[in-house]
Amino acid sequence: MSEKDQLKKQRTQIDDIDEQILDLLKTRKDVVQDVIKRKVENQLPVFVAGREEEKTESFRRKAADRGIDPDWAEDFLRMVMAASRAAQSAEKFPSATEEPKHILYVGGEGGMGSLYRRFTESSGHISYSLDKGNWYQLEEMAPKLDMVIITVPINVSIDVIRRIAPKLKPDTILADFTSNKSEPLKAMLDAHDGPVVGLHPMHGPDVPNLSKQLMVICSGRDSEKADWFREQCILWGMRIIEANPSKHDHVMHLVQGLRHFVALLHGSFMKEYDLNPNEMLDYSSPIYRAELMMTGRIFAQDAELYADIVFANKERRDLLLTFFRHHQTLMEMVENDDKRGFIREFEAVTDFFGKFASQALTESGYLINRLADRFS
Amino acid sequence: MSEKDQLKKQRTQIDDIDEQILDLLKTRKDVVQDVIKRKVENQLPVFVAGREEEKTESFRRKAADRGIDPDWAEDFLRMVMAASRAAQSAEKFPSATEEPKHILYVGGEGGMGSLYRRFTESSGHISYSLDKGNWYQLEEMAPKLDMVIITVPINVSIDVIRRIAPKLKPDTILADFTSNKSEPLKAMLDAHDGPVVGLHPMHGPDVPNLSKQLMVICSGRDSEKADWFREQCILWGMRIIEANPSKHDHVMHLVQGLRHFVALLHGSFMKEYDLNPNEMLDYSSPIYRAELMMTGRIFAQDAELYADIVFANKERRDLLLTFFRHHQTLMEMVENDDKRGFIREFEAVTDFFGKFASQALTESGYLINRLADRFS
Repeated sequence: MSEKDQLKKQRTQIDDIDEQILDLLKTRKDVVQDVIKRKVENQLPVFVAGREEEKTESFRRKAADRGIDPDWAEDFLRMVMAASRAAQSAEKFPSATEEPKHILYVGGEGGMGSLYRRFTESSGHISYSLDKGNWYQLEEMAPKLDMVIITVPINVSIDVIRRIAPKLKPDTILADFTSNKSEPLKAMLDAHDGPVVGLHPMHGPDVPNLSKQLMVICSGRDSEKADWFREQCILWGMRIIEANPSKHDHVMHLVQGLRHFVALLHGSFMKEYDLNPNEMLDYSSPIYRAELMMTGRIFAQDAELYADIVFANKERRDLLLTFFRHHQTLMEMVENDDKRGFIREFEAVTDFFGKFASQALTESGYLINRLADRFS
Repeated sequence: MSEKDQLKKQRTQIDDIDEQILDLLKTRKDVVQDVIKRKVENQLPVFVAGREEEKTESFRRKAADRGIDPDWAEDFLRMVMAASRAAQSAEKFPSATEEPKHILYVGGEGGMGSLYRRFTESSGHISYSLDKGNWYQLEEMAPKLDMVIITVPINVSIDVIRRIAPKLKPDTILADFTSNKSEPLKAMLDAHDGPVVGLHPMHGPDVPNLSKQLMVICSGRDSEKADWFREQCILWGMRIIEANPSKHDHVMHLVQGLRHFVALLHGSFMKEYDLNPNEMLDYSSPIYRAELMMTGRIFAQDAELYADIVFANKERRDLLLTFFRHHQTLMEMVENDDKRGFIREFEAVTDFFGKFASQALTESGYLINRLADRFS
């Protein structure tokens, strides 16, 4: 056989193998769908964390037996398992309660409101939506409600809390999804005599499902009355973290306010410096490409939304001023060409970060390789 | 059959499918290895870009036929293809020339020097290394050299160029790997009368192989004499971009200087604000986790190296001062609680970014999902 024919034959062989793999993935998907259906029918939790780890370990071993890199195999398995979870988004979920609960989402037509209404209904509960157009229906809804969740833009949430609380039964649970917690929690406690709980779902409205997403819970008053909601979040596959509201807000100022401000600073500086992002891509390593994309994506979204996040309150603005003063300090090193000073500060951060820095080096190595596969 | 037995049976079925997939992946790997071996023996390029795209398209179609999300399938295929490339790192590469070339790497014991020496040897050329300990060997090497590549820390590269150039034959190609290009290129042209070319391999020393990595080439003098090296990079699987040195440096000030300075600013601010990265992780969405990891990884590395990058030259320091003044301007909005000003600036960036912003939103969506699979 000529060299050319031999290569052609092998190419066909690879195509055949790929078709067989796709067939197996299809069968696997069907079996998983059936398992999920059975589990939901029998009120069993769909995803069991321990089982997933066990499965991963055994898959790694089997891969290694075949001379396949176990880290690669784990990535592959996680992709397959994530696809199973995504497929579940249209499915039913078990309910955390025997009797269905009645939950009102205020701002129910927004992204987060629509998402949680869908999950609420998929678990057999009854969801209500209050938005700009139907506020007049509140009186009719109020007597039925077990729980009210405020999920409106951050700059109006306090007003909405004050407006809605007086209309509720004393035993209705009042909760909110605002991304800061101290102020809304205080407003809810002031305005409502019944159970109060502050929630912060740490994800955007465009996730394919809630599996593995994080729900922050801050106790307000009698928050054990909302244990069934917590349980429901777990049945949706969420991770729960109980947090102190001021600690939560302290972190969020940095995570939300500072990050989005720095994104504007970056984009706006590129504009001033006339660095066209498309030209930058020509010179980009995969990781810088990813950073550019993370900055770029913000400017495809609503300016008002980001302004609300950055200008949420005085504390957040104060943090940005502190950050600016910090920048000023470091800038002196640059002005004085003080390379030693830079190295001293760098090493102090290394000490502060401790083991985290080397963990980050390993973990980001994975990320950089995945990005190189995809984006170069 | 009881519900429990049925679930157990299905679990076994999934495990069986996974073993079959692993078997197929193993066979696929063996076939690919054999293809690569044959291609190298026959001096054929190992990876053909068009072929990869064609393969991807047909794989997407076949996945869709089976009800599998084609985007997911493409990610899967890219993972498989990347693993094939990685497996090649220990293999031989075709040579771009009939006669082997003699290449000296100055700084040959460093990360980049070692990496390129290995690839040089794997393609049948002869590599030499000059480093702190064996400078005395230069005289003996010089008459044999077709090409010299300076790959030393940025702050000493000009000195090394001036020191080495007078020892070279006039027809030896002088090149460098420095991450800025204008100054080293000028120094090489001044110090050497023969062919000169500026190179910037846009990747770190820890990549598994050179496939899909970017090599920036800046013409100096008679740079067509280095066409065989360019050809060799393509045979290693690299992408080539020809660049104007000052345009390249303009972009690099931002990509290298500013990014690493901002990383220090971020880390150092976390230290001041006493925000422990491990605690932050509790509150992190996958994408913020990735950002933290990208900042954290820097502090597991050498402070001196980053100081060299940030303080490379006056232009780069000037850029950082411009950046600081820009920060000052935006800060006034925060001081004055000028949300409208923020929105105006945001919208100006949206206009400047144009279509890039929506492209970024789509592309980063992929990234965020992959991160959620892995890190949550």
